[in-house]
Amino acid sequence: MSIVVVGSVALDSVETPSGKLDNALGGSATYFSIAASFFTSGIKLVAVIGDDFPQEHIEFLCSKGIDLEGLEKVSGKTFRWSGRYGFNLSGAETLSTELNVFENFSPKIPQSYKGSEYVFLANINPELQLDVLRQVDGAKLVICDTMNLWINERKRELLETIKHVNILIINDAEARQLTGEAKVDMAARRILEYGPERVVIKKGEHGAMTLSDKSYFSAPAYPLRSVLDPTGAGDTFAGGLVGYLASTGETSELNIRKAIIYGTVLASFNVEDFSLNRQRSLTREEIESRFCEMQAITRF
Amino acid sequence: MSIVVVGSVALDSVETPSGKLDNALGGSATYFSIAASFFTSGIKLVAVIGDDFPQEHIEFLCSKGIDLEGLEKVSGKTFRWSGRYGFNLSGAETLSTELNVFENFSPKIPQSYKGSEYVFLANINPELQLDVLRQVDGAKLVICDTMNLWINERKRELLETIKHVNILIINDAEARQLTGEAKVDMAARRILEYGPERVVIKKGEHGAMTLSDKSYFSAPAYPLRSVLDPTGAGDTFAGGLVGYLASTGETSELNIRKAIIYGTVLASFNVEDFSLNRQRSLTREEIESRFCEMQAITRF
Repeated sequence: MSIVVVGSVALDSVETPSGKLDNALGGSATYFSIAASFFTSGIKLVAVIGDDFPQEHIEFLCSKGIDLEGLEKVSGKTFRWSGRYGFNLSGAETLSTELNVFENFSPKIPQSYKGSEYVFLANINPELQLDVLRQVDGAKLVICDTMNLWINERKRELLETIKHVNILIINDAEARQLTGEAKVDMAARRILEYGPERVVIKKGEHGAMTLSDKSYFSAPAYPLRSVLDPTGAGDTFAGGLVGYLASTGETSELNIRKAIIYGTVLASFNVEDFSLNRQRSLTREEIESRFCEMQAITRF
Repeated sequence: MSIVVVGSVALDSVETPSGKLDNALGGSATYFSIAASFFTSGIKLVAVIGDDFPQEHIEFLCSKGIDLEGLEKVSGKTFRWSGRYGFNLSGAETLSTELNVFENFSPKIPQSYKGSEYVFLANINPELQLDVLRQVDGAKLVICDTMNLWINERKRELLETIKHVNILIINDAEARQLTGEAKVDMAARRILEYGPERVVIKKGEHGAMTLSDKSYFSAPAYPLRSVLDPTGAGDTFAGGLVGYLASTGETSELNIRKAIIYGTVLASFNVEDFSLNRQRSLTREEIESRFCEMQAITRF
């Protein structure tokens, strides 16, 4: 089944204790799409880039079978983000954000994208997320992400978006911030009251959990030996999750659990190198092998 | 198989957002012993109390089949600890510590305790832990806990103790403090270099993990709806873990994983009420039922 993903395509400059990379490929929709592309070829990207966006990145996305009809190129500079991670690698300090062409981004869903069964609303202004929802009416499963900025500045609109999605994927700090609950489990329960059928909470090195009315599931993170750059881990997680779901076309509890494990595995590869570099050489066999390891480390 | 446990028996005054309880039964050896008593009757306590220690607490310990020959009563007041938990219930603020008779505690292992297969060194001065190890020479499995105070003030002695134990059980903050590693997994790897065969790291609401040379296992916490008082959760976890191991007499990887799940389950009950109140009515059937729930929430 096909997935429409709406979000950012960016050029990131990132500094971590392991090194530094300038103007590398980044953006929520990029990380999501590349991760999902390991499971399905029906990924339809909606984003905006400037006329400075390197052709090699377009070719990389293309080579992964991602449909770029909705990737709008406009005059001006591409969205740029620059950040730094400290010793414990949890949470970046933003050094600068240049919205550039992203500032006036107004997602337009191409006709050929309509009828897609899955929609992923990556982290953008919830007003735009709502606008996308109006354009893709009839999707089977809508999954949405957000960030602290929108919880602070657009909470009303965000809650309206959340009411209309099937699955909210959010990190632990955001879940606490959104609900005012100190514990992740309690925050998850509260989020279900906002309307979605299911919430998935990403907990970084502590793994992920999901809650629906009927079920609870907890998965550890993959045990990493080294982390080079955590940028994009959350979007990569979501890409693995939704990509696997779409490839199987099945949303049973068991399948969603497997999808969370695939998301975890994809994220674990992503952080092993800067930008999307690890994904360039990643194979499906490596993914399956780590999926099996996840089973081995959780069985009792 | 029998377990010698050496630690504190105390009277705790605890304040949490849910209420307050003064001079209630507490202490690391108490929490450990009561938890372990759900699995085995061979628990041999070594601790010290003052002549003010309420007889009803002695009777409670007795009623759980715990051997109290090593519970020394001396003239003076019992060890008292008082603490307060804030909104997020993670980590107590110590309001006061009155060591009282615990100040000169010098553990003496009764002759009848010698030959016990399992030894649990609860959180006491590592010099005393080493002294106990000299007295129980020949134990099959030595498990040890510690705390931030000893990492700060007796690191050399603590590392000497750790070198001689089979399993170190420690919480995530202590693991990071002891090793200087920012990530729990890396801290665990470093701890193995200190000498123990295995490390178990308690991560509070994020569950627990264990690492040995050959294996890695990660378990979530039990999903709680409310937490009244976290005091003693770590010792209760250890009591469930070691109690189950001793009752089965088997230390295979699978059995240690099951033991960690039993520890998790016992700790989940402990925090549902102040002091050891929840344990007073707890049944083995309730424990087994939650063990099955832990399987249900981790399967994929």
